[in-house]
Amino acid sequence: MIDPGVHLMIGALIFPNMDQCDFTGPFEALARVPNSTFVTIARDKSPVRDLKGLRFLPDVSMEDAPKLDVLLVPGGYGQEALMHDEDTLAFIRAQARHARYVFSVCTGALLCGAAGLLEGKQATTHWTAMEVLRYYGATPTHERVVVDGSMVSAGGVTAGIDGSLVVVSLLRGSTVAEEIQLYMAYEPKTPFTAGSPDTAPAHVLNAVTEQARAITEERIKTARQYRALRDRAAGTN
Amino acid sequence: MIDPGVHLMIGALIFPNMDQCDFTGPFEALARVPNSTFVTIARDKSPVRDLKGLRFLPDVSMEDAPKLDVLLVPGGYGQEALMHDEDTLAFIRAQARHARYVFSVCTGALLCGAAGLLEGKQATTHWTAMEVLRYYGATPTHERVVVDGSMVSAGGVTAGIDGSLVVVSLLRGSTVAEEIQLYMAYEPKTPFTAGSPDTAPAHVLNAVTEQARAITEERIKTARQYRALRDRAAGTN
Repeated sequence: MIDPGVHLMIGALIFPNMDQCDFTGPFEALARVPNSTFVTIARDKSPVRDLKGLRFLPDVSMEDAPKLDVLLVPGGYGQEALMHDEDTLAFIRAQARHARYVFSVCTGALLCGAAGLLEGKQATTHWTAMEVLRYYGATPTHERVVVDGSMVSAGGVTAGIDGSLVVVSLLRGSTVAEEIQLYMAYEPKTPFTAGSPDTAPAHVLNAVTEQARAITEERIKTARQYRALRDRAAGTN
Repeated sequence: MIDPGVHLMIGALIFPNMDQCDFTGPFEALARVPNSTFVTIARDKSPVRDLKGLRFLPDVSMEDAPKLDVLLVPGGYGQEALMHDEDTLAFIRAQARHARYVFSVCTGALLCGAAGLLEGKQATTHWTAMEVLRYYGATPTHERVVVDGSMVSAGGVTAGIDGSLVVVSLLRGSTVAEEIQLYMAYEPKTPFTAGSPDTAPAHVLNAVTEQARAITEERIKTARQYRALRDRAAGTN
């Protein structure tokens, strides 16, 4: 917990074809942290379209972004297009150097991995990408939220809401997190029981795994390239 | 469940000072309904700023909006400014006449109430506004999601996610809803136990009730005006 008198700068990197809920779920809690400012950050100030067409106006460009206490990195299919984008990776790396927390949601963890933040860390991501984490030097951890030092990662999409309440408690204590949870009426009652590979019926699991097959294969290919480069640089090849 | 061959038009009314999560939570599920289009609808095509500063670009104005199969009505403090806005209420009423479902989240229910959609219905809303529903002729129902004919209402903020999965199942069946739930990794594990007045510690409940006092009083005042007008029109005064 941080001195309540210290103002906190919280920011989210948003990008085309992100999964908007990875970002908007945590926004709901993080934008309510007392004595803080929340900024949305994109390549430039043009509208950002999520993978289902929802359009956001960012507050600042990466170049003009302030130093952040917390950097939120969402995921979604669009993450893959940024895995070799040196501007984005350099931005994440630079913010991570002084941020109190980097908070990835869903496959935002892979972006953090490509920026080199997951080496030697425990982390989680969307269940379809869990094993991809190993290429980034992380130990995949089957928890909804994983805190390892300054790296906080949440699982797929809606896990970002759980993760954001954990981040709020790290920043401002559990009473503030509870007040936000109560405001958000966050006492979920899922109408179906299919939220994880362990609980979904087999035909549902098969269908969603199949829908994600192409992007998962791309993610593995990208991750192997990262590992090969990294190992070569370390002289272990 | 509707013939899968029938294309569905799904739309959300978005407005200044709405609570973005009332809208973005359901968007995540509803934008994935097979054979459907999702449109965001605002007074005009200018950016819409949520109550914590997140800015959205709407797709169409109310005037140009297509006929909807599902109308999503989010809430948040900004709902109160629209309770006497005849353009907005007329839009909701007109869409409700032919929509298969009107789906309110949080205090979006009060907007539906002001449009006259809750008379004789069971409904739910944010816990701070639950008793306000009575003035709109509704029976407050302490469930996370309430389906009463074509009116679907969800409780506060995050209840919209549960509600949207119910709406998906009404539209396209439970297997589709389960597939979306699995994609969204919606198996919540709340890090604290404070999501409802029944479970929150007393000091947390008191703090959040106090934070909402002014807006709750406004909402009651507005609701009494509605009831008085309605009763006068019906000749019961």
